[in-house]
Amino acid sequence: MTVNRRILMTSRPVGEPTEANFSLVTDIIPTPGAGEILVRTQWLSLDPYMRGRMNATASFATPVGINDVMIGGGIGEVIASNNPKFARGDMVLGECGWQEYSLSDGSDFTILEAAAGSETAILSSLGMPGFTAYIGLLKLGEPQEGETVLVSAASGAVGAVVGQIAKLKGCRVVGIVGGPEKCAYITKELGFDAAVDRHSPTFADDLKAACPKGADVYFENVGGTVFDTVIPVLNPFARITLCGMAAKYNMTSLPEGPDRTTILLFNIMAKRITIKGLIIYDHMADHAKFIEDMSAWVCDGKIKVKEDITVGIENAIGAFINLMQGKNFGKPLVKFA
Amino acid sequence: MTVNRRILMTSRPVGEPTEANFSLVTDIIPTPGAGEILVRTQWLSLDPYMRGRMNATASFATPVGINDVMIGGGIGEVIASNNPKFARGDMVLGECGWQEYSLSDGSDFTILEAAAGSETAILSSLGMPGFTAYIGLLKLGEPQEGETVLVSAASGAVGAVVGQIAKLKGCRVVGIVGGPEKCAYITKELGFDAAVDRHSPTFADDLKAACPKGADVYFENVGGTVFDTVIPVLNPFARITLCGMAAKYNMTSLPEGPDRTTILLFNIMAKRITIKGLIIYDHMADHAKFIEDMSAWVCDGKIKVKEDITVGIENAIGAFINLMQGKNFGKPLVKFA
Repeated sequence: MTVNRRILMTSRPVGEPTEANFSLVTDIIPTPGAGEILVRTQWLSLDPYMRGRMNATASFATPVGINDVMIGGGIGEVIASNNPKFARGDMVLGECGWQEYSLSDGSDFTILEAAAGSETAILSSLGMPGFTAYIGLLKLGEPQEGETVLVSAASGAVGAVVGQIAKLKGCRVVGIVGGPEKCAYITKELGFDAAVDRHSPTFADDLKAACPKGADVYFENVGGTVFDTVIPVLNPFARITLCGMAAKYNMTSLPEGPDRTTILLFNIMAKRITIKGLIIYDHMADHAKFIEDMSAWVCDGKIKVKEDITVGIENAIGAFINLMQGKNFGKPLVKFA
Repeated sequence: MTVNRRILMTSRPVGEPTEANFSLVTDIIPTPGAGEILVRTQWLSLDPYMRGRMNATASFATPVGINDVMIGGGIGEVIASNNPKFARGDMVLGECGWQEYSLSDGSDFTILEAAAGSETAILSSLGMPGFTAYIGLLKLGEPQEGETVLVSAASGAVGAVVGQIAKLKGCRVVGIVGGPEKCAYITKELGFDAAVDRHSPTFADDLKAACPKGADVYFENVGGTVFDTVIPVLNPFARITLCGMAAKYNMTSLPEGPDRTTILLFNIMAKRITIKGLIIYDHMADHAKFIEDMSAWVCDGKIKVKEDITVGIENAIGAFINLMQGKNFGKPLVKFA
């Protein structure tokens, strides 16, 4: 080959990406300058996060520019090097982009050592999808032996690893996928305990049946109606790892008005927001420490509380209605006459 | 007094509670049986959680029954005791209900020891509202010195304590309240750094101005549009303690269709669900351990990954479109020719 074929994003997709948003162009193969390497791409990984990078709106990473080469990680071979850290013939992992040849100062490539599995495992189970599954399940989801772990896009690069790690940890594992073929795959080949087809007209009922004890961990890759359907199945103290919202990546605009769930979830994901529901009775073990601290603060005048006192039981209802209407001012108390 | 006045819930409120939902009845003062105590209520605490207990729908606690005495905690005096753990004259804290006299086997009352602050502090700063503030802020919100803590219903029983504890921890504290009077109160009397009036037509702008560095912890007591307005102000890695949704307690039905935020938040709260956004690059410190574990699992055949291989750069776009449409089956990879 004597040319470098590259895919540029020539316009930003509106909704689903189409061919018209991209252009395959032919450039000359670049020559590495001082300190640079030339990498010939062997494997390019495609991942859902790329859709987000096609949008102009700021996310946690820089958008791809119009007429820029599409970003993307992959495996390549160093075919020329002016960088002492790399030798010709090195296999490297890094930011190849959607192109046959890439120039780099080497900072975005690492030399591949021999690793477990296939040549491309470093792009899947040993790569970012696997690492995402591992952290998202074990560190964020904290599954306990015997619990039920639910994962969407369960035959995908992340989901399939999530389910298998969960099995290793002694969990019941239920996968949500699209279509009977994927259902069969995750149960028969990956060892999931159950699979649910999100295209089924009985999806919600199927999901409940597959989780007879509810679900304790939900690893979310999809969002949208799948998310909504999962919510009723979750147990108290369930943990959700919000990893992806593939169903929404092609949204053309943020929903207006009352549909705020998607906005919320995008914010949770992009900002790594943590939400925890609080029922105070779960925390009684900390009560003594609280009394100790708070007593000292109150004695020292560091904590003040305004009381909104209503006198007489006959006024209790009115006071409560006021409270509901936000008309109270301070801690509502009824003083019995 | 020779009678026991009690407030019964005679019908379940639809929307905002009204007087018509309750009835003040007069009963005889009961006589304690074996092991029982008779408590004369002195203080009844009114709290937003009560609204939830008026609904027939299951929550984390049992609903009040029709024609039952309304539930509620308070302070009372033991005026008769057949229980060796209580003596006449003991001041007790517990489930008085909305009534002048209550009978109990003692299990739902504790004898009040002398404590810091006023007689009723045990119902506010030293009671459940204070404890809720303490746990919800410190344990769930994990504020760090110098961070900005935002709290809604900031002049309320919980919110006022949240803000003050946050000040003690060296945070910038911003409160959301309804009306200029409450704004003045939390800044001038409680020492909040700023107050924002949610009734102001410039609420969203005011909020941004009050949080020039964004917000790191949000202690939510209100829900609804307040929640929506806060979301854009939150910083990456913000923590939300979802403690209450006062704006929604009077909902007559769960929103249909696309308005799923409220359903989601109610579930998070009632089920103590934790949501954490995941951006894998935050977790690189765990990468070596991951590689170690995953390598072993792959070698042992415990982790399998299906690859969906597309050959040729010219087919990359189509493969990516497939991925977006969920048509891929396994980890998408493009093999360069």
